[in-house]
Amino acid sequence: MPSKPKLKIAAVAGGVGASKLLLGLYEVMDPGLLTIIVNTGDDIVLHGLKISPDLDIVTYTLAGIVDAAKGWGFRGETFHALKHLAAYGRPNWFNLGDRDLATHIHRTASLAEGKTLSEAADSIRLALGVKSRILPMSDSPVPTIIDSSEGPLHFQEYLVKRRTEAVVKGIRFASVESARPAPGVLEAIRDADRILICPSNPLISIGPILAVPGIREELRANKEKVFAVCPIVGGKSLKGPSDKMLAQLGRDSSALGVAKLYADFTGTFVIDPADKSQSAAISALGMQVAVLPTVMKTLAHKRKLARDLLSLPPALPL
Amino acid sequence: MPSKPKLKIAAVAGGVGASKLLLGLYEVMDPGLLTIIVNTGDDIVLHGLKISPDLDIVTYTLAGIVDAAKGWGFRGETFHALKHLAAYGRPNWFNLGDRDLATHIHRTASLAEGKTLSEAADSIRLALGVKSRILPMSDSPVPTIIDSSEGPLHFQEYLVKRRTEAVVKGIRFASVESARPAPGVLEAIRDADRILICPSNPLISIGPILAVPGIREELRANKEKVFAVCPIVGGKSLKGPSDKMLAQLGRDSSALGVAKLYADFTGTFVIDPADKSQSAAISALGMQVAVLPTVMKTLAHKRKLARDLLSLPPALPL
Repeated sequence: MPSKPKLKIAAVAGGVGASKLLLGLYEVMDPGLLTIIVNTGDDIVLHGLKISPDLDIVTYTLAGIVDAAKGWGFRGETFHALKHLAAYGRPNWFNLGDRDLATHIHRTASLAEGKTLSEAADSIRLALGVKSRILPMSDSPVPTIIDSSEGPLHFQEYLVKRRTEAVVKGIRFASVESARPAPGVLEAIRDADRILICPSNPLISIGPILAVPGIREELRANKEKVFAVCPIVGGKSLKGPSDKMLAQLGRDSSALGVAKLYADFTGTFVIDPADKSQSAAISALGMQVAVLPTVMKTLAHKRKLARDLLSLPPALPL
Repeated sequence: MPSKPKLKIAAVAGGVGASKLLLGLYEVMDPGLLTIIVNTGDDIVLHGLKISPDLDIVTYTLAGIVDAAKGWGFRGETFHALKHLAAYGRPNWFNLGDRDLATHIHRTASLAEGKTLSEAADSIRLALGVKSRILPMSDSPVPTIIDSSEGPLHFQEYLVKRRTEAVVKGIRFASVESARPAPGVLEAIRDADRILICPSNPLISIGPILAVPGIREELRANKEKVFAVCPIVGGKSLKGPSDKMLAQLGRDSSALGVAKLYADFTGTFVIDPADKSQSAAISALGMQVAVLPTVMKTLAHKRKLARDLLSLPPALPL
């Protein structure tokens, strides 16, 4: 067994896609040296409860309690409360399990008691025994709004209620101008030996994090430490609607397309062997290119990619 | 099968004790002619959720979904969310089942959306198929505070958390001076052919209802229509801590003791045969006395008492 690398890592993450890599990292490194900065643009208030899907997906995954088949929620979950909420005429398009509800109730009550979203997230990950710090991108709400063929939709309405069937015309992060990075976010980027951009949707998982004033700038200032794992392989999303959304917005739904979005703050762009032909074009954007297997179907794949990323040489100063 | 009496009934009710009689009434009369005025002094906010125990006990009982062994909550309930709330460091002395949580989430969200407690209660009973109207005593919070040997306790803390072990020194209904009867409460009393005071704790189930300005006065004005079922039989509570609380407050924990508390607004006081010897003393308070079996161990007993009450002659005008 190789010894665990002693690098301090900051990971920039969405939900299900990111959690595959994060689980690999959590297992191959000292998890106390890992800080995860999580998208909260997906957050939504339903039934008066503040729901932070990506924070919960990351936390449940690293706690080892996630429903691995779905990638979210508790394993062996029941949905008794949701069934009764529906009987009371409340919307039930967003799945809320009974155990999961405790998280939302606790977070909502914590906020009502004057705590911040960061403090609530920290109490949840500690209660669930997660050893890595999990930070929301911001303590203030920055809901992602999809301007679509059906009008403006909250991202969860677009993703879950409308099952990505509406055509995307634009993406906005409401109130992002006045949002500030949550405490510790900029410091985690600055202090990290390596910053990993997880293979998440560049538009609506990484995009909202980059849009919080100060975060993209901090990444740029640490560009040689930034390693971005491309979420598109062979022109298809590893997970979710990235490819479709990129295409509907007139962008290039390829590794190169993602590279263009990340070129200003990324030192090393990591692509799958399937996209090796795009290496030269990506290099021309001013980044190193690393070719690593990025499709993570098993825990072994997740560990392998994590180890590979930690072993890459740092990018040359630019 | 005798035909169902066509009397309009208003019932003044607490929780578990009252629900036995209410279930009997619901079955032997046209439930559309029954209006139930329920104690909300027991209401409490836990984990940010507004919980109305007596409203829910009555509603679940009449909906046929109550856990009959406990007298509250859903039958076949699970407690997954509560277990996780406890893991997050939240108090778990108050049992909240997963299905039951849907009721509290719906009520809390309804209030946040600008609805009244009455409107929330009505939506819940309608969703659960209850044909009788269920009204909170008031739409504003009137928490029952027990001044005890351990200092002031919310009634639920006294009852559930401290299991009635603190010595009662006094009872207060906070903010009751400014509370008003919920819409329909006074009208239900006025319009009823018969008003039943259910066999509930006189101090902390019926007491809070009587304390809402206007309700006791309306009962007095309709005294001859008021039939009160004594919750104390042979010096013991049928249910709960009534006897102990009466004794600790220096009051008579007997049928006569309860009769004294109700004499100003009750036309007919209903006692169990076990207390027949107190008939003359109760009559001397200015009420008719009816002797009926009031111990309801089976559904047949509940129906029998309900039928007996509906068959009693009205009290003479006083």
